[in-house]
Amino acid sequence: MGRQKVYLDKLARLFQIRNLLLRQALAECLGTLILVMFGTGSVAQLVLSGGSHGMFLTVNFAFGFAATLGILVCGQVSGGHLNPAVTFALCLLGRERWRKFPMYFLFQTIGAFFGAAIIFAMYYDALWDLPSSFNMTDPTLTAGIFATYPAKHLTLLNGIFDQIIGTASLIVCILAIVDPYNNPIPQGLEAFTVGFVVLVIGLAMGFNSGYAVNPARDLGPRVFTAMAGWGGEVFTSGNGWFLVPVFAPFFGTLIGVIIYQLMVGFHVEGEVRDRKERTEHENVRLTNVTSNDNAKEVGKEMH
Amino acid sequence: MGRQKVYLDKLARLFQIRNLLLRQALAECLGTLILVMFGTGSVAQLVLSGGSHGMFLTVNFAFGFAATLGILVCGQVSGGHLNPAVTFALCLLGRERWRKFPMYFLFQTIGAFFGAAIIFAMYYDALWDLPSSFNMTDPTLTAGIFATYPAKHLTLLNGIFDQIIGTASLIVCILAIVDPYNNPIPQGLEAFTVGFVVLVIGLAMGFNSGYAVNPARDLGPRVFTAMAGWGGEVFTSGNGWFLVPVFAPFFGTLIGVIIYQLMVGFHVEGEVRDRKERTEHENVRLTNVTSNDNAKEVGKEMH
Amino acid sequence: MGRQKVYLDKLARLFQIRNLLLRQALAECLGTLILVMFGTGSVAQLVLSGGSHGMFLTVNFAFGFAATLGILVCGQVSGGHLNPAVTFALCLLGRERWRKFPMYFLFQTIGAFFGAAIIFAMYYDALWDLPSSFNMTDPTLTAGIFATYPAKHLTLLNGIFDQIIGTASLIVCILAIVDPYNNPIPQGLEAFTVGFVVLVIGLAMGFNSGYAVNPARDLGPRVFTAMAGWGGEVFTSGNGWFLVPVFAPFFGTLIGVIIYQLMVGFHVEGEVRDRKERTEHENVRLTNVTSNDNAKEVGKEMH
Amino acid sequence: MGRQKVYLDKLARLFQIRNLLLRQALAECLGTLILVMFGTGSVAQLVLSGGSHGMFLTVNFAFGFAATLGILVCGQVSGGHLNPAVTFALCLLGRERWRKFPMYFLFQTIGAFFGAAIIFAMYYDALWDLPSSFNMTDPTLTAGIFATYPAKHLTLLNGIFDQIIGTASLIVCILAIVDPYNNPIPQGLEAFTVGFVVLVIGLAMGFNSGYAVNPARDLGPRVFTAMAGWGGEVFTSGNGWFLVPVFAPFFGTLIGVIIYQLMVGFHVEGEVRDRKERTEHENVRLTNVTSNDNAKEVGKEMH
Repeated sequence: MGRQKVYLDKLARLFQIRNLLLRQALAECLGTLILVMFGTGSVAQLVLSGGSHGMFLTVNFAFGFAATLGILVCGQVSGGHLNPAVTFALCLLGRERWRKFPMYFLFQTIGAFFGAAIIFAMYYDALWDLPSSFNMTDPTLTAGIFATYPAKHLTLLNGIFDQIIGTASLIVCILAIVDPYNNPIPQGLEAFTVGFVVLVIGLAMGFNSGYAVNPARDLGPRVFTAMAGWGGEVFTSGNGWFLVPVFAPFFGTLIGVIIYQLMVGFHVEGEVRDRKERTEHENVRLTNVTSNDNAKEVGKEMH
Repeated sequence: MGRQKVYLDKLARLFQIRNLLLRQALAECLGTLILVMFGTGSVAQLVLSGGSHGMFLTVNFAFGFAATLGILVCGQVSGGHLNPAVTFALCLLGRERWRKFPMYFLFQTIGAFFGAAIIFAMYYDALWDLPSSFNMTDPTLTAGIFATYPAKHLTLLNGIFDQIIGTASLIVCILAIVDPYNNPIPQGLEAFTVGFVVLVIGLAMGFNSGYAVNPARDLGPRVFTAMAGWGGEVFTSGNGWFLVPVFAPFFGTLIGVIIYQLMVGFHVEGEVRDRKERTEHENVRLTNVTSNDNAKEVGKEMH
Repeated sequence: MGRQKVYLDKLARLFQIRNLLLRQALAECLGTLILVMFGTGSVAQLVLSGGSHGMFLTVNFAFGFAATLGILVCGQVSGGHLNPAVTFALCLLGRERWRKFPMYFLFQTIGAFFGAAIIFAMYYDALWDLPSSFNMTDPTLTAGIFATYPAKHLTLLNGIFDQIIGTASLIVCILAIVDPYNNPIPQGLEAFTVGFVVLVIGLAMGFNSGYAVNPARDLGPRVFTAMAGWGGEVFTSGNGWFLVPVFAPFFGTLIGVIIYQLMVGFHVEGEVRDRKERTEHENVRLTNVTSNDNAKEVGKEMH
Repeated sequence: MGRQKVYLDKLARLFQIRNLLLRQALAECLGTLILVMFGTGSVAQLVLSGGSHGMFLTVNFAFGFAATLGILVCGQVSGGHLNPAVTFALCLLGRERWRKFPMYFLFQTIGAFFGAAIIFAMYYDALWDLPSSFNMTDPTLTAGIFATYPAKHLTLLNGIFDQIIGTASLIVCILAIVDPYNNPIPQGLEAFTVGFVVLVIGLAMGFNSGYAVNPARDLGPRVFTAMAGWGGEVFTSGNGWFLVPVFAPFFGTLIGVIIYQLMVGFHVEGEVRDRKERTEHENVRLTNVTSNDNAKEVGKEMH
């Protein structure tokens, strides 16, 4: 085994990337790939099997636990955001640097693109087997495996509100989970808890438009479907619906951050700050007292 | 980023609330909002999609994990009750002060009200799309998304018993989970375990009337539906059923507390007390012995 | 609140039971009550709603997580067996005293009896609403809510084998989870893991006869149904099927214990013993060496 | 109880196996037996009950949590691979010795064989009850309970790609979970996390050919079905499909290892190595400085 170790060590040194931001972006790319591969894979299984191998609940489970696995794969390196809206929330709160935001957004979208591509290749035969696949007149049928499309009942305004509420809920829960002043869960279980958040959002907020709540998860696969044969209709369908899951989540993030901070965040943070300031104040007083004492002693000695 | 930090710090100081009870009540409000938003959202998804995007199991999962998330959001600040019956149980056992009870009840109900309101707004188009929505002659159809209504087979007496048993089961399990003398689970996993309790109650006790087992979760959304267009029938329907999930849970709490304390609680608590008293007793004896010795020594010295 | 504390303290002292075995038996009783209440409750919900509020998967989830909750309620006090077969396995391995076995068996059966009784009372209206309920000619229809009955395809021999295999699987997994020489999971998560074992047994071994794998869980509710109106047929049905889930699990326990010990248990245990003996042996040699040295020195001194 | 302890101790010494590799292989055998017993049991329950006692989701849950339980039973002894592809991945990375690979592969396959045999015996009556069982013209109907067969839409090429992608996904996630330089989850929860990986693969990648992604899990039961009455057709069916789940997973492993190492593994590993080398370098410099100082001092003393 000695030889193998030497060879592995050489490989490791050859391919090691030392630029931290690039390393983090690559990890985000792989994490988002896993999220989208398993997530869209479950939708593909549901749609292509005509319901025999899946139902909406299995899609909810798949997206939830895929988020967990994606975070586990890249969390130690990049924080495991998998979602530009999460990166945006952490930048807003000053916990991540703003220059990370475009880099993460790009690589998350690339990861989502390839995640969709893998599922496309995996279910290629099954797609061709379906009479309506690659149907250009109703792209929502099989294109809906990869990107989200609004349900028939949904107006654009309600759709925007849907994405804002969904993302705000996601962000409130995630902020509670990762708040440094409000640590409710054991170290290392954050990934599982975020998975439950995504699961619950799917169980409760999935009927309007398939709960994208993630610009990268929706944009990457949509670009892929446009290139893979569904054509430009994936962008024009639903009066330009594709813009909603790209932009609305950021408004949702803003609202989620404000709600969490106003109702919980500022107060737990403030409590810690108050305690610290009180301690410092007492230390100052103590120092003053000691100085006075010293002064007195010095005075005594001077006499 | 220096400027952003300064700005964030100013905001934090501006909005910080220093009154502990108000802070706790606000946290309970947000936690219950999350519980009711995800819970009623899953019922909405089931009812409005006609079963294609949900089933009773998804409602059970949503309420269970929504309880977990609600507790995680507010647990560190307020204890994460989300339910006046839980607050009542802890007051009964002397673990929370009674003056918390009305405050928590009020803010939990307000949170539940707004949780229902968010889901109403989110599924507004879908509600109008349903032919029977806002139907005043049978308010249980879509009003049942928000508050609970009895099934046709249920008499009022059986309904009261249903709520009592459901809440008693909830309280027995929660008391076991948070009993300071009987800590069965790792720190930080209480929220998950309570989520499983709510899930199991839904799996086993949901057929009669939809397992409210929580006065705030039922009253808040019911008041909202009355205001949102379903009208006063939400109160008169089922011979005043709305009173059952508001009052019966407190009787269930009382029974649950008694059963848990008689069968487990008093004994584990007593064991700890016995051990402490024995130690104290021995210390007293030791002190006496030492005093005697001292007395003797003093006596010796006096000779 | 001072007065309440005094009153609670008095109550606690009044009702405290100091006999350890009785206390443990009471805790087992409550734990098994919770297991059977939630478990049979989910079957009742499935059967009485005609499938609208449940399916076989919800029964599997309910029994699994009900086992978790039952163990959490009583585990610290009594070990959380909830099942005479588990008590039997631990007695066989010398980890529990044999005199616990009859006491636990009795109180587990009593708990199961009352668990079924609570569900009977809770769904009383729904039971009367069903045309076929309390049907004496086919007691398996609604009596099957409470106790297990064999499927039509099952012969008695296959049924016995079914219960033996099911219990052996349960015991192998539980022994791995609680083996003191093979601690695979974090302290405090045993209850959750046992819940998953019960869930998986239900998913894979539930079609023949409803996976009782627990004499108390089956006998207690069966006695209750005989008294509640279904009559003696609950015992005579299926050529005396009721004896199978009472006796076959103990044979399964024996087989499970043998398989686990032969394939894993004896070796991990032996490894620890070998290491200990080696250390002791070296200590003895060291002591001898020292003694010899001492002897020599003594000899020297004597010269 | 003294006598029982003596007897148990004698038994333990009699059956203890001291050869480490054999002990590990036996543990892998039991672990894989549990995985396959529960996994194929859930397929049997689904197929034989005609869907009343199972659905594809229950199969996904059963395989996922059966993997968890199998790992818990043998993980401390053998590492809990349960899958030759996992053993192969760890050998490739130099974390397990290559001579373990054939031994583990053999005993994993034997365990899978007996897991299938137990389910065959357990559901023997139910199998004979089905009109189409033991049907030699279409072996995929009930033989599909035990081994995997391709869906009608699947070409051999797509099937090979399916197994490669499935195994690569499994390996990427498992490597992230057990990477010594990237420990994202609390000690002891690996088994649960791997269970979620298997669950998600089933939810998203199960429609083509039933996600074997494990040569032992597929080959052992297939050999059993050939012997149990389905005959040689289990090998010839689907143009020799049986070779795909035996060989394709190893290619998938290779790809999974490369992807994980290139995108995450090499960098986290390299970071640790860089830090270590820097520390060593500084130590060397410090030692040199000290030596110089010493040399100077020696020089001083020499003057």
